[in-house]
Amino acid sequence: MARARAAAGLCARDPQPSEESCTQEDLLLAAAYVSDAEHNRNVRFETSPQTIRLYYFYNHWAMRAATNFFIFLDLSLALFEEPALFPLPFLATSIAEVLCLTAFFGRLVHFAKVTPQMVFWKDTKNICIMVTIVLTLIDLIIYGSLEAVSIHTVRWSRALRPVFLINFPQSRQVRIQIRRTFRSIRNTLPDILYVFLLFLFSMLIFSLMALKLFGDRGLRTAGGSPYFTDILEIAFELYVLVTTANSPDVMMPAYDFNWWYSLYFITYIIINTYIFMSVFLAVIYNNYRKHLKNEIRKLAYLKRHKMIQAFDILKVKVGSEFVVKEAEWKRLAKIVAPNISSSHLELLLKISDEGQKGHVDKTNFIRLADLLNIQVVTMDVKRHPLEAWMPQVYTSSLSLFIQKMVQHRIFVWIYDVIILINAVFIALDEKNALISYAEWLFLSLYITEILLKLYTYEPRAYFGRKQFWNWFDTLIIIAALVATVANATIQSASRRSSQQILDIVLVLRVLRLLRVIVSIERRRLLGLSSAAPLGVFKLPTFRFRVIVTTLINIGPTMLTFGGLVLVVYYTFAIIGMEMFHGKVQFFDSNFTTPGALVCGNPALKDTAFARDRYCKNNFNDLASSFIVLMELTVVNQWHIIAGGFALVTHQAAKLYFIAFHVVVVILIVNIFIAFILEAFFVAYSLEKSEVETAIEKKIQELGVGVKEEEVQDGALIDHVDTKDSGFSGGDGHSKRKGSKGLYFRIASKRYRTVDTLLQRMFESEIAPEDEGPSLDEILNFSPSDIYPRNPNFENST
Amino acid sequence: MARARAAAGLCARDPQPSEESCTQEDLLLAAAYVSDAEHNRNVRFETSPQTIRLYYFYNHWAMRAATNFFIFLDLSLALFEEPALFPLPFLATSIAEVLCLTAFFGRLVHFAKVTPQMVFWKDTKNICIMVTIVLTLIDLIIYGSLEAVSIHTVRWSRALRPVFLINFPQSRQVRIQIRRTFRSIRNTLPDILYVFLLFLFSMLIFSLMALKLFGDRGLRTAGGSPYFTDILEIAFELYVLVTTANSPDVMMPAYDFNWWYSLYFITYIIINTYIFMSVFLAVIYNNYRKHLKNEIRKLAYLKRHKMIQAFDILKVKVGSEFVVKEAEWKRLAKIVAPNISSSHLELLLKISDEGQKGHVDKTNFIRLADLLNIQVVTMDVKRHPLEAWMPQVYTSSLSLFIQKMVQHRIFVWIYDVIILINAVFIALDEKNALISYAEWLFLSLYITEILLKLYTYEPRAYFGRKQFWNWFDTLIIIAALVATVANATIQSASRRSSQQILDIVLVLRVLRLLRVIVSIERRRLLGLSSAAPLGVFKLPTFRFRVIVTTLINIGPTMLTFGGLVLVVYYTFAIIGMEMFHGKVQFFDSNFTTPGALVCGNPALKDTAFARDRYCKNNFNDLASSFIVLMELTVVNQWHIIAGGFALVTHQAAKLYFIAFHVVVVILIVNIFIAFILEAFFVAYSLEKSEVETAIEKKIQELGVGVKEEEVQDGALIDHVDTKDSGFSGGDGHSKRKGSKGLYFRIASKRYRTVDTLLQRMFESEIAPEDEGPSLDEILNFSPSDIYPRNPNFENST
Repeated sequence: MARARAAAGLCARDPQPSEESCTQEDLLLAAAYVSDAEHNRNVRFETSPQTIRLYYFYNHWAMRAATNFFIFLDLSLALFEEPALFPLPFLATSIAEVLCLTAFFGRLVHFAKVTPQMVFWKDTKNICIMVTIVLTLIDLIIYGSLEAVSIHTVRWSRALRPVFLINFPQSRQVRIQIRRTFRSIRNTLPDILYVFLLFLFSMLIFSLMALKLFGDRGLRTAGGSPYFTDILEIAFELYVLVTTANSPDVMMPAYDFNWWYSLYFITYIIINTYIFMSVFLAVIYNNYRKHLKNEIRKLAYLKRHKMIQAFDILKVKVGSEFVVKEAEWKRLAKIVAPNISSSHLELLLKISDEGQKGHVDKTNFIRLADLLNIQVVTMDVKRHPLEAWMPQVYTSSLSLFIQKMVQHRIFVWIYDVIILINAVFIALDEKNALISYAEWLFLSLYITEILLKLYTYEPRAYFGRKQFWNWFDTLIIIAALVATVANATIQSASRRSSQQILDIVLVLRVLRLLRVIVSIERRRLLGLSSAAPLGVFKLPTFRFRVIVTTLINIGPTMLTFGGLVLVVYYTFAIIGMEMFHGKVQFFDSNFTTPGALVCGNPALKDTAFARDRYCKNNFNDLASSFIVLMELTVVNQWHIIAGGFALVTHQAAKLYFIAFHVVVVILIVNIFIAFILEAFFVAYSLEKSEVETAIEKKIQELGVGVKEEEVQDGALIDHVDTKDSGFSGGDGHSKRKGSKGLYFRIASKRYRTVDTLLQRMFESEIAPEDEGPSLDEILNFSPSDIYPRNPNFENST
Repeated sequence: MARARAAAGLCARDPQPSEESCTQEDLLLAAAYVSDAEHNRNVRFETSPQTIRLYYFYNHWAMRAATNFFIFLDLSLALFEEPALFPLPFLATSIAEVLCLTAFFGRLVHFAKVTPQMVFWKDTKNICIMVTIVLTLIDLIIYGSLEAVSIHTVRWSRALRPVFLINFPQSRQVRIQIRRTFRSIRNTLPDILYVFLLFLFSMLIFSLMALKLFGDRGLRTAGGSPYFTDILEIAFELYVLVTTANSPDVMMPAYDFNWWYSLYFITYIIINTYIFMSVFLAVIYNNYRKHLKNEIRKLAYLKRHKMIQAFDILKVKVGSEFVVKEAEWKRLAKIVAPNISSSHLELLLKISDEGQKGHVDKTNFIRLADLLNIQVVTMDVKRHPLEAWMPQVYTSSLSLFIQKMVQHRIFVWIYDVIILINAVFIALDEKNALISYAEWLFLSLYITEILLKLYTYEPRAYFGRKQFWNWFDTLIIIAALVATVANATIQSASRRSSQQILDIVLVLRVLRLLRVIVSIERRRLLGLSSAAPLGVFKLPTFRFRVIVTTLINIGPTMLTFGGLVLVVYYTFAIIGMEMFHGKVQFFDSNFTTPGALVCGNPALKDTAFARDRYCKNNFNDLASSFIVLMELTVVNQWHIIAGGFALVTHQAAKLYFIAFHVVVVILIVNIFIAFILEAFFVAYSLEKSEVETAIEKKIQELGVGVKEEEVQDGALIDHVDTKDSGFSGGDGHSKRKGSKGLYFRIASKRYRTVDTLLQRMFESEIAPEDEGPSLDEILNFSPSDIYPRNPNFENST
């Protein structure tokens, strides 16, 4: 920090504007801050010139990619280690693992060189990584040496591998989300714990009651075993009842005996299944919400803080105020974004240097990070290439008629009908030759449609970055075409079709039907906007759009949850494989092997596990383990799987399954639900308004902005309410024909995640002059600060 | 209305205050308005003197009780009609039904006489009731005459009976809530419908894919039936998979064949089970929240509107402003609350007539309804009766020592230990004589505890209205004492104990253990407040309290949901009984009857229904039907029950079960979860602040209020943080000994429902002078008005 001040002095102390007032080092330091602000990175680094260069190297994409590569290599080792999907000798996997550990260590050393000592050793993430590296090495050595003398032990450190995925300080969205979720789980734990204790207590009370009420009755279950005689068994059965997995079965013997006893179970289900499980959701959701907002506030202030640091390095005094001179500003922008075009840079400067005074003031300088994040588009792309290439033909009356036809709503309707007929044909038996020919007809119809659209609409706009449905359409059709042709070739060559390719063709064929959703959405918009200009039907349309849009927006964040689930699954899978591998085996359905019916384990004779043919639900390799864990996540029949594995090992094995249920179903699934609820509530609350940040307002004022909706505009006939059409095309360019050149593309609110939406909301609320609290205060923000001290009717719920 | 104006003139036109300026009729009319405001009633009535008297009669408790009696008589007829739990001849039940219908018709006629013609005929509730009465009569006549010639038909009108429960305009909280929930369902339907259509579409796509992928493979399920060959069956299986009820089973054949196929099921589960089901919850919760707030705003403004109407009738001009004179005000209060004591009335007047000017101004008059709702307590009840009766003995050093001992925290700890030992003894085998003697010991210990507490604390305070745990304790112990004595008597008389009484004793014995929760809560408060006066441990304590308090507060509203569930269950039960009764029979476990194993129906041979012994899950009477419906609500194994009933009737019977799932699990259970989430969020957002309405502020200023916490105060040693002790007692009265007399008891925020909390929040936000919008505007409030037009970061989620 001391160095930063000194560096700042170099530029700032000089009151007269001179050509080269800042050194390259100062610029690099400032650019590092700006770049961190742009990418929401939060790393404290030393400010000496060498360290800054190291820091640039640390953030280089190749370094990040290499780290990611080693993390995934490390995780994927489980596929090759015993019990393996693809077995490799221990030597190979252990060498690979040591390689990964070396890479992790190198990355950590690099990080330690960049960040101040104090900060490095205070960060639990770094400690975590180091401890895990050491533990893994110890485990490798012990296991390897015992293996050398043919003693098989447990490779327990494998369960720690996700630590690297979670803890490496990277800025990738997925990992931020995973870490946020873990933090949110950690913060939620005290609350959850209270509820969990209450819940356990209630289970205990009910277990005791069940023992007293049913224990001495001599009742038997449908399977013939004694009913509710052992307190531990009762507790397990009642825990299973909370998950509803044994719902009527556990009640039936008592209910058959006397129907009054059903009241006991009804009370239990109401209290424990309905109320307690909802309370878990309430507690988790409440915490998720609080922490999400806290984090977003933190991010926004940190970004601003970094931009102020950058400004303080480059500032010079002009008149009474500190500013950054144009030349410095340009050099800085060139370092932060090396590939920026000079016209783009001029546009940015036009926004930042309001009065064309030759320098940028503090408020405008702070916006640089956001400015760099806004996409810039060239507006003259909207002319169809065919029009440029052969204008006579393209603008001939036949060509115009075709274009008009394609743009007409009847064209959409015709294709909807075709899709529906297609659906019927798919459902019919394809052995029929006529139907298999029809398939070719449909395929060519779809290809014609795409070609016609490409003829009518400008191709670059049609395949725009956000044109999800156009991409989807085209990819599905091309893939189907390729697969169908491949299948036909194989079929004519070898007289039998390849099963895999056939499956792919079938799936693609059905996926095509999804297009009807776009069509419905689009038609509703069109139909209603002309039939009922305003009024009753307006809102439902809007709601439908909100729902579909939110569903599509959820997509990317789903990947995040994929990452989170991967972490937890991986750990549980490794533990599960160590405990259960080989105990249950799957034999092919030919039934020739003795013991195929009991999954190769006599202990499973006459159990529900064997009766339900769950032999393939085993922990014999990583893929199988993941599928078992998925089934456990879905909850149903989990007690049968748990019971089976408890029989082939020990009753205590049920604890593994209960732990999995608590971690995944009670915590993670509820966080997932909280995330979806949140996404919908933010979408609903923004339904009627647009949040504009200060920059966007300014861009609009200067007239150099174009809304994403406008970019996508056109294509549909009457330009009424076509904002969300998903189409793009030829018609729109007439509007803006005069104003060619670069424009800022202001993203529409449709394609934003909850995070971006909330961050925009927060940033639009803090004043441009607000410098925010100090760095330490920012880092210690707590969710309870943000909570409204005086709740009111509006925001109470 | 014209009459009201004229009547108002009588009082208002006279500028000079005179003794008897308002007629009795005017007062009655004003009192009707005030009373409606007080009880949140919303009935528009004619204002002629006769009608007002009729309206008083209409609101009389006896009339309401009679209506309720007939509603429940009508509903309970299902117990006595075929298929009956307690069979009665058709003649008896039909006479009872006609009686009920007459009563309903009478009530409706009474209502029609009270309310203006226009309003009556516009109200769909009344039309609904009339149509239902007519339909029921027609059905009765047809059924009766066909029965006379021995043709059995369907008594379909029975399914309509809940209409009366929902639609009679009563002010009981339960029914308000039921109607609100129905309204909320109705308003949510469009949104839900879109999601449902998308969901069905996605199911269709997946069904088609499944047919293509698995249909021709010749796979077999574990039961040996063909796998995924029929599109309808596939659709049903996939719907069941959404409910997770057939989770791994439906996947196993495909997974056994090729593990890649599991990806199909994983995708399906992620999209349909997780995402769509969460979206249903999001949509329902969002609507619930909006409608709840809208309704509360409506109620608050309607209340104010009625008070203004009442004021306009009684107002006279004094100086430049309109007021109500003291004499009129008192007469009015006496009519609204006939049993009010004169000292209570004086206290109300003291609040309302600020400057003791002999009249009440508009702002103060409007508060009357709220004032009447605030409980008034006499503060000098806090002296122990024994102290008054024999002061020497009660204040002797031994007696004081006992009191001190009982108040000491060690006393609480000792009893916690006793409870824990008791728990162990309960778990042990009670055949042992020692243990059965120990039971007497524990019982006497608990009785001693209660007696000691009654000796120490003032009995009326100990059994205060809100002292939930004290009541609970005492009732459980007394019931256990009575039951144990009864059991011992029977045992010694007949040498065998009665099963029922023994069961009750056992349950009561276990329920006693619940006391440990109070104890933990109380001890945490004590322990932490002395150990860590402020800081880290403060919040967790608070959270624990929030959770426990909210759980207890949820209790009463649970009854509401009981009512709602009753309505839906009743309708489905009647339909189910008409369709399925007698098809499945339960035989006792002696297995002597042939067909006992197939529930008396050969169609069930070798089905999962018979194998799982679900014979008692039938629709042969109302109680059994309710239990089956409960099992369907819990969802697990519902497809087996549905499959069983489809086999004994027709495959289309599955539609009944799917409809039940959609209505109860997707709609009502989600509303229930929304309700719990809402309760917790309101509790959390009020965690740190107290909402005071204008009246409460004023009461506090005048020093005539006492907070509920203070009333309950005392008892615990050091008065630190004992607000939530649940105790009451002797110590507190020393504080306020000088100030005997009446005080307003201001309810603490702890014992409030979400409704009251929200209403208080809203009322504390509207200015006392705000007269609100006009009546028509109020009645047409829509939830979208209330939605924040400019959402901000705080209230966005």
